[in-house]
Amino acid sequence: MTVSSLVQLRLVWCCWTLPRWQMNNHKRPLAVWTSATAQWTLKQKKLAELYRMPVSRPSILSGTSLLGKRALSTTSSSPKEVMLTSERYGVQRLPFSHVSDSDIAFFEHLIPGRVITDPDELRLFNVDWLQSVRGCSKMLLRPRTAAEVSEILRYCNKRKLAVNPQGGNTGLVGGSVPVFDEIIISTALMNQVISFNSVSGILVCQAGCILENLNQYLEELDFIMPLDLGAKGSCHIGGNVATNAGGLRLLRYGSLRGTVLGLEVALADGSILNCLASLRKDNTGYDLKQLFIGSEGTLGIITAVSILCPRKPKSVNLVFLGCQSFSQVLGTFTTCKGMLGEILSAYEFMDDKCMKLVENHLKLSNPVTGSSFYILIETSGSNSAHDEEKLNNFLEHVMASGLVTDGTVATEDKKIKMLWSLRERITEALTHDGCVYKYDLSLPVERLYDLVIDTRARLGKTAKNVVGYGHLGDGNLHLNITAESYSHSLLDAIEPFVYEWTAQYNGSISAEHGLGFKKKHYIQYSKPQEAVLLMQQVKAMLDPKGILNPYKTLPASS
Amino acid sequence: MTVSSLVQLRLVWCCWTLPRWQMNNHKRPLAVWTSATAQWTLKQKKLAELYRMPVSRPSILSGTSLLGKRALSTTSSSPKEVMLTSERYGVQRLPFSHVSDSDIAFFEHLIPGRVITDPDELRLFNVDWLQSVRGCSKMLLRPRTAAEVSEILRYCNKRKLAVNPQGGNTGLVGGSVPVFDEIIISTALMNQVISFNSVSGILVCQAGCILENLNQYLEELDFIMPLDLGAKGSCHIGGNVATNAGGLRLLRYGSLRGTVLGLEVALADGSILNCLASLRKDNTGYDLKQLFIGSEGTLGIITAVSILCPRKPKSVNLVFLGCQSFSQVLGTFTTCKGMLGEILSAYEFMDDKCMKLVENHLKLSNPVTGSSFYILIETSGSNSAHDEEKLNNFLEHVMASGLVTDGTVATEDKKIKMLWSLRERITEALTHDGCVYKYDLSLPVERLYDLVIDTRARLGKTAKNVVGYGHLGDGNLHLNITAESYSHSLLDAIEPFVYEWTAQYNGSISAEHGLGFKKKHYIQYSKPQEAVLLMQQVKAMLDPKGILNPYKTLPASS
Repeated sequence: MTVSSLVQLRLVWCCWTLPRWQMNNHKRPLAVWTSATAQWTLKQKKLAELYRMPVSRPSILSGTSLLGKRALSTTSSSPKEVMLTSERYGVQRLPFSHVSDSDIAFFEHLIPGRVITDPDELRLFNVDWLQSVRGCSKMLLRPRTAAEVSEILRYCNKRKLAVNPQGGNTGLVGGSVPVFDEIIISTALMNQVISFNSVSGILVCQAGCILENLNQYLEELDFIMPLDLGAKGSCHIGGNVATNAGGLRLLRYGSLRGTVLGLEVALADGSILNCLASLRKDNTGYDLKQLFIGSEGTLGIITAVSILCPRKPKSVNLVFLGCQSFSQVLGTFTTCKGMLGEILSAYEFMDDKCMKLVENHLKLSNPVTGSSFYILIETSGSNSAHDEEKLNNFLEHVMASGLVTDGTVATEDKKIKMLWSLRERITEALTHDGCVYKYDLSLPVERLYDLVIDTRARLGKTAKNVVGYGHLGDGNLHLNITAESYSHSLLDAIEPFVYEWTAQYNGSISAEHGLGFKKKHYIQYSKPQEAVLLMQQVKAMLDPKGILNPYKTLPASS
Repeated sequence: MTVSSLVQLRLVWCCWTLPRWQMNNHKRPLAVWTSATAQWTLKQKKLAELYRMPVSRPSILSGTSLLGKRALSTTSSSPKEVMLTSERYGVQRLPFSHVSDSDIAFFEHLIPGRVITDPDELRLFNVDWLQSVRGCSKMLLRPRTAAEVSEILRYCNKRKLAVNPQGGNTGLVGGSVPVFDEIIISTALMNQVISFNSVSGILVCQAGCILENLNQYLEELDFIMPLDLGAKGSCHIGGNVATNAGGLRLLRYGSLRGTVLGLEVALADGSILNCLASLRKDNTGYDLKQLFIGSEGTLGIITAVSILCPRKPKSVNLVFLGCQSFSQVLGTFTTCKGMLGEILSAYEFMDDKCMKLVENHLKLSNPVTGSSFYILIETSGSNSAHDEEKLNNFLEHVMASGLVTDGTVATEDKKIKMLWSLRERITEALTHDGCVYKYDLSLPVERLYDLVIDTRARLGKTAKNVVGYGHLGDGNLHLNITAESYSHSLLDAIEPFVYEWTAQYNGSISAEHGLGFKKKHYIQYSKPQEAVLLMQQVKAMLDPKGILNPYKTLPASS
């Protein structure tokens, strides 16, 4: 997608006015309301408010979807402005070989026409999506098969050439781009579905398949992917697995450690480890694939994935609610878990500052205004009447108890997508607000928002915005701080404060983004020294020359 | 429990006659039936048959529960009759040190009163529950804390004394008892709950907690354990995690790889690896705990577990159905997944030969007779009216389509437990049938039962019984062959036939039981050579002297 088409879409979005849906226009009024007695009048009025919903237009929605993709073209500034990582962070290059003409000739022979050395073409792949780090790789390779990846690695290992595996380049911790001149190995052309079994729901595909494409493919077969995230339009499944991506469906379908059934991995020495089983259960020896899930390309390059996919839910509902305090957000969560039970599939929250950023920078419209916190609750089930009755009972309860002050409900696909975009596009809105300092933390839910409040108080006017949002259902806070430009002094005010704060509550300093380049030195806030030492031993065993994604994930062995 | 009390309970069971529940006595007739029209008469009659249910007596049920425990006292023959593993299998002892008087003195000083060296006391711990393997350990240690386990291992590693970690000794592949004179380290006294958070549902406990006790503890707090298995009355959570136990709830709550959030592990050199996080998401470095899940005590001794527990379902229903063919079992499964959706929590099957064993050896009564296959379907949900409506629609459909010919439904806890015992006690019934050859396989569901048919045809009259049952929802078949006594020739007829058959369909030769002592040499049927080599490297890295549970899980490095 080009920048001009994006601008056009944004203009359409800006010009669009938002008529409201009223309760009596709703296609599926819920049973409890039609049988309401006179004493329900006040509640009905409050509940009716919940069911107002902007009408959507298909053109907008497709635009929304495309805008939602994480790709460099959607951000405002040019990649050339990004400071080199080595300069900004003062990193020393490790003694890897430099790419020579004979290396280029070797790769041109191995994968003709799929070796990129043109500096202009390479620029996009050297810079991360946040435009916060930049490498200076001189070569990008685009293999199509595991055998080609194997040959590339065998050669690089022998020559001691460092490599940087890259999927959709949507990572947020600087893990997906080179730090120096590592050869970029892109999975973009490894984008084939290998098999799908509609009895077991097991999908086997190459690592470069884009998550959203896989989901669309599966939806036609009445299944869905077990994970979903804002970057779905760009990210690759191999990258998702390599970073153990969490996202929006983890609450319902669990982590990739449970749903990934098998992997094919090219190891540093070029050997292929085929653990691409398509079995729900397999206790024959150690589960080696787990080593590669979440290891951020530092132990091997994932070339194919076998993953268990759930049935497409027959009924999906989305509720967008407003609360006046974070304790009400928590109270609503506890109530929700009890009353929605097995149909609860997402519980997301965002503060009012997030909403302002989405409104100001992306011109999205908030259907529920004037609250301090907003909640998105999704239900997915197999019987729409049952789901709506459960949801209705829940809404009635949280409205009556005063936990929730306002809200809107969506049951149609287009409106559901539109409401989701308010949450999913916060990351994008933040990039338009200036330089972003991103923190992705696991914390006990009851303390989750205190960190936002404390950080805001600590930074005062030195920050432009301090916002909090995330997957409350998983105890996962996304704390983001924006400023007009990057500054060492602001960074010093944030770190290690945020990490120390998190460590005191036994939290994780990276819930789902990984450590990448930016956070590897902070691992000790979440892992004891013995664990880090063991990780370094694992790394040394699998990649003795250290060619795989160097400078990432683990601090150097002392 | 003593043998005499068991006999008494069995007598009570035998004397018990079985009145039937009729449809019109059912406390909660489902809505769809009360509104049935005349054309439903025939179906109603068929459905009414489904709702017959034996009345249970509490004394029987507690007996059932106790009988269901896996412990040596429940089996018929005495441990002393079991042949030594080293003799039966012709294994050579590795050059570990022998336990000396000064070693015993050291341990007596470290954990006074908790060092067992009396041969009579040791006998039970040297033999597996199946009475199929026997070691000759001369010492059992009962530490109470991770620090004590650490000290024990530090000493053993220094002295090159081999150890055998032991939980409830309920394993089925000879992994839980010594092969020679390994020191048994029992987790039995490490049985304390450390913490439970009722907001997050995260339980932290010591490794020696018995699964059933944990579940009872949680049920009082409105939660349950995410796993359940026949051996729950004896097995330890540490052993469950060390063997990556699957069991009856995997279909609903996923594998331990997703639900175990943290582990504390004592390594071979005595160091403690504390990865006991209580976070749903944590992407800080490699997920080391995964190495220990399913490694059968060969990489470290798990001393504590942090595990995510689901809410106790408000409504549980169990259906026990009869089918005339395996293709009907499969058809019922596909229908069930579509119609029960998110409330489906178990789908188990057993053939008529299993049922006969349970009836003959345990005197349990089958409420649905005359079918070739039996199915247990469990639903767990948050709204009983919704669940029953879904279940009713499903039953109506499978009865009308002829997939199911007979059945019974249970909604009350006692009756649910009684029906479950028909499935859970098959393992126990088999031990009463003679020498058991056990196979635990993952296969594509559509081929699952073909293996039972082919094995039965192959063995003919050389086997007493060839039965098939298991977790159909997970593609997991338990194939069991019984004979009057152990015979090499029968074993040769079964193996490698069963493994080759499984490998040709890319199945797993151990779905959930692990490899232990008995199956380690067959790993290549499910894992490529590169994977086995890498596993051996991992073992060498973590346990260079090989003291942890030797002779198990992996074949020796060549």
